[in-house]
Amino acid sequence: MTTFTLRRQLTIEWGHCDPAGIVFNPRFFEFFDASSWLLFEAALSVKAQDLATTFDIVGIALVDARANFLKPVKFGDAVEIASRVSEFRRSSFDVEHRLSVNGAPAVEGSESRVWAVRDPGDPDKIKTAPIPAEVIARFT
Amino acid sequence: MTTFTLRRQLTIEWGHCDPAGIVFNPRFFEFFDASSWLLFEAALSVKAQDLATTFDIVGIALVDARANFLKPVKFGDAVEIASRVSEFRRSSFDVEHRLSVNGAPAVEGSESRVWAVRDPGDPDKIKTAPIPAEVIARFT
Amino acid sequence: MTTFTLRRQLTIEWGHCDPAGIVFNPRFFEFFDASSWLLFEAALSVKAQDLATTFDIVGIALVDARANFLKPVKFGDAVEIASRVSEFRRSSFDVEHRLSVNGAPAVEGSESRVWAVRDPGDPDKIKTAPIPAEVIARFT
Amino acid sequence: MTTFTLRRQLTIEWGHCDPAGIVFNPRFFEFFDASSWLLFEAALSVKAQDLATTFDIVGIALVDARANFLKPVKFGDAVEIASRVSEFRRSSFDVEHRLSVNGAPAVEGSESRVWAVRDPGDPDKIKTAPIPAEVIARFT
Repeated sequence: MTTFTLRRQLTIEWGHCDPAGIVFNPRFFEFFDASSWLLFEAALSVKAQDLATTFDIVGIALVDARANFLKPVKFGDAVEIASRVSEFRRSSFDVEHRLSVNGAPAVEGSESRVWAVRDPGDPDKIKTAPIPAEVIARFT
Repeated sequence: MTTFTLRRQLTIEWGHCDPAGIVFNPRFFEFFDASSWLLFEAALSVKAQDLATTFDIVGIALVDARANFLKPVKFGDAVEIASRVSEFRRSSFDVEHRLSVNGAPAVEGSESRVWAVRDPGDPDKIKTAPIPAEVIARFT
Repeated sequence: MTTFTLRRQLTIEWGHCDPAGIVFNPRFFEFFDASSWLLFEAALSVKAQDLATTFDIVGIALVDARANFLKPVKFGDAVEIASRVSEFRRSSFDVEHRLSVNGAPAVEGSESRVWAVRDPGDPDKIKTAPIPAEVIARFT
Repeated sequence: MTTFTLRRQLTIEWGHCDPAGIVFNPRFFEFFDASSWLLFEAALSVKAQDLATTFDIVGIALVDARANFLKPVKFGDAVEIASRVSEFRRSSFDVEHRLSVNGAPAVEGSESRVWAVRDPGDPDKIKTAPIPAEVIARFT
């Protein structure tokens, strides 16, 4: 469990919500995806749009995403999302996202991602690569 | 495991895809949500927009959603999504979604949902209720 | 032309962009819709989610939306959106949105909206109503 | 005004709709964008994902989009979208989209797009180019 945490605030928009007046679930996955980019940007001090070229990767590709909806989030709610890497493995890692409203947990998200590089033998293909130690070090 | 399966085909649009040219992950959760509505519509022979009034429920509320991304899905890909209820419990159930491209599995999704009704004691609140046996019967 | 202007900043996310690496056009209409809500919230000092009950309206319903794309907006771009009501009429009004990147205009949006109330004779219907003078006064 | 028309049907999903129970306006711009791709695919008999390489273009880039909302479109509505090129100019063209519910016009959309190619002098730049006569001929 790493300690570097990215916190951000946002207010739920009209267009985030469905006819029940609560956030349509795919929007949470948008929020979490953006938070993962911001987490790496902040930890590595590299702009999100420069991560690929700086580290010679294709990206931090998502292989699994999950969310647990604890309570409804509504139009106008001020939410906070706290995100951190819960585990680094050799070439993959997990990110956990905790979304709360007024301090009360509302949605828990988790993602598994891989450090993805272009296959030197076939530039059309992508493969995983070991995450550099200096990258991991920035999260603790 | 129920046997009633809803299959539908769709073609990946330009706007579904991200700068890597593959489907942005929240879109899959949109696809799966729509498939769950269509599954109930087909199994119960009730229009999606009439499910709530027909069964006197608020809806089939999502409590957990998950997706596993096996291979990238790209602009123009013709995909098939096969969805069915993998388990009915007293007042909740699981839906599994299998998205394939040219017959090859690409994304596996799963949702947990509850049969949600308005709390008779407080109409602003929602609670779970037992799923009617005749509803469950329509899926087998 | 009213003078009250709502300015907000946001950073373009990965998920806002299409395979060309630029913002997928419907996202701009999302941005503008959210800005219109925020504009009214700020001018009237009423939370967006309370506008309907405070003014006894159904909402500020959109009847026309337009955007002119002057230059591409890319992943990671820091944008500013400046929004104001360009004209109030008896029961409708226009909002103009100017989105810029580093001070250079990139997208110009405009919306026509109506002050929408429930029809007293048929609560399922919506009709337009005169915009209260005290509402208009808050924008100048 | 060209005569080649692309018609498609779709059913409004729960996730397309906002707390008022009607389609959130940016969704219509998604629908229209997809229809424009399908219109070119059908007229030119080239898969949407192959248009760029087949015609050596970057794409059919959007410079202006507009929609006029005539009546609300709701969850479960079966809509038809009819799209055609209303005018071809030297290097740009207009597409008009007519969305109807049960035959009644509900939303009218229009787009202006340009035939966009890579600048031979600077591959990072994009410029417009004359639309080939054989492309235009396929729409009449």
